[in-house]
Amino acid sequence: MTKGERTRERIIRQAAPLFNQRGYEGSSMQEIMAATELEKGGIYRHFSSKQELAAKAFDYAWAEAMKARRHDLDGVDNSVDKLKRYIANFVERRGSVPGGCPLLNTATDSDDGNAVLRTRARKALRGWQNFLEAIIADGIRKSEIRANVEKAKLANVIIASLEGAIMIGRLEQSLEPLRTAQSHLDDYLEAKVRIKN
Amino acid sequence: MTKGERTRERIIRQAAPLFNQRGYEGSSMQEIMAATELEKGGIYRHFSSKQELAAKAFDYAWAEAMKARRHDLDGVDNSVDKLKRYIANFVERRGSVPGGCPLLNTATDSDDGNAVLRTRARKALRGWQNFLEAIIADGIRKSEIRANVEKAKLANVIIASLEGAIMIGRLEQSLEPLRTAQSHLDDYLEAKVRIKN
Repeated sequence: MTKGERTRERIIRQAAPLFNQRGYEGSSMQEIMAATELEKGGIYRHFSSKQELAAKAFDYAWAEAMKARRHDLDGVDNSVDKLKRYIANFVERRGSVPGGCPLLNTATDSDDGNAVLRTRARKALRGWQNFLEAIIADGIRKSEIRANVEKAKLANVIIASLEGAIMIGRLEQSLEPLRTAQSHLDDYLEAKVRIKN
Repeated sequence: MTKGERTRERIIRQAAPLFNQRGYEGSSMQEIMAATELEKGGIYRHFSSKQELAAKAFDYAWAEAMKARRHDLDGVDNSVDKLKRYIANFVERRGSVPGGCPLLNTATDSDDGNAVLRTRARKALRGWQNFLEAIIADGIRKSEIRANVEKAKLANVIIASLEGAIMIGRLEQSLEPLRTAQSHLDDYLEAKVRIKN
């Protein structure tokens, strides 16, 4: 990596918590300058616009969140157990960027306006759905998951339950709503998804 | 109502869509002036601060959302059917204020900062939980709902599923995620909540 590339990465890393906590409009150039300890010109040398920086910051925060949620997943063989481990990771592990789920924040922040961020959030959501759907499809193929399970629907039930629970938990400053979602989803996976031998 | 009170209500009504779509920071005084067709002084004659106006606008948007979701609920006798009707209303009916669920928007907008809005969002969430919990408690008392159902948990499962599905559906510009949440919740209510005679 060149020095310029390193600076660019550092700016993204330092701006990400700001955007994730305060949103696009709530993150002023002043605050971005303070967080990165750079002048305006120093930032614009690396990014064409605040929007470009916000998009990169979202990608970074999202990659960090995914890394946390996928922790140790490869070690789990059975696909239903893999979904359960994914859900447990979601409840117990956080990405390195504070401020809650980057997707939930960026989706609600951008759904009425900011097209660049909105496209980014949609792409992140699609990637998340694909990831869960692949586990489900694999489970059906290996006869671990019932053939009548609709993978797009199950993926959305998992995503919606967890994201909604984050919203409640962050308002109440409690992990309880996420734990409730986990136990609801785990029961559902056992009762309606897993094929028992 | 005095003329002043009418003006105040009109400002709230006209500012609510702006705050609900663009968030607190994203709603500039310029845009509030344009939406209400008033000068700054005309707005500050009725509200001590932008924050006070945003709080009232949230309360208004939330009241409108609740009205839509509670539509015709009193006509439903059985408490499980009442929960199902509530969920159906949530999927099919919108409050009069565009921009998605005011609670989801205001919660993600304020959870890292704005204390006034955050308190408002928490109060709204608590009111929503209380409303659903009262239906569930009533159902247990009338032996329509199983005695082992934990009302706080069931209320949160319903709220989280619906709010998370709104997030997905607004990104995908589709009602499908909400319909998936509805069918998931309906199945759950029939399988694990309702006492069958």
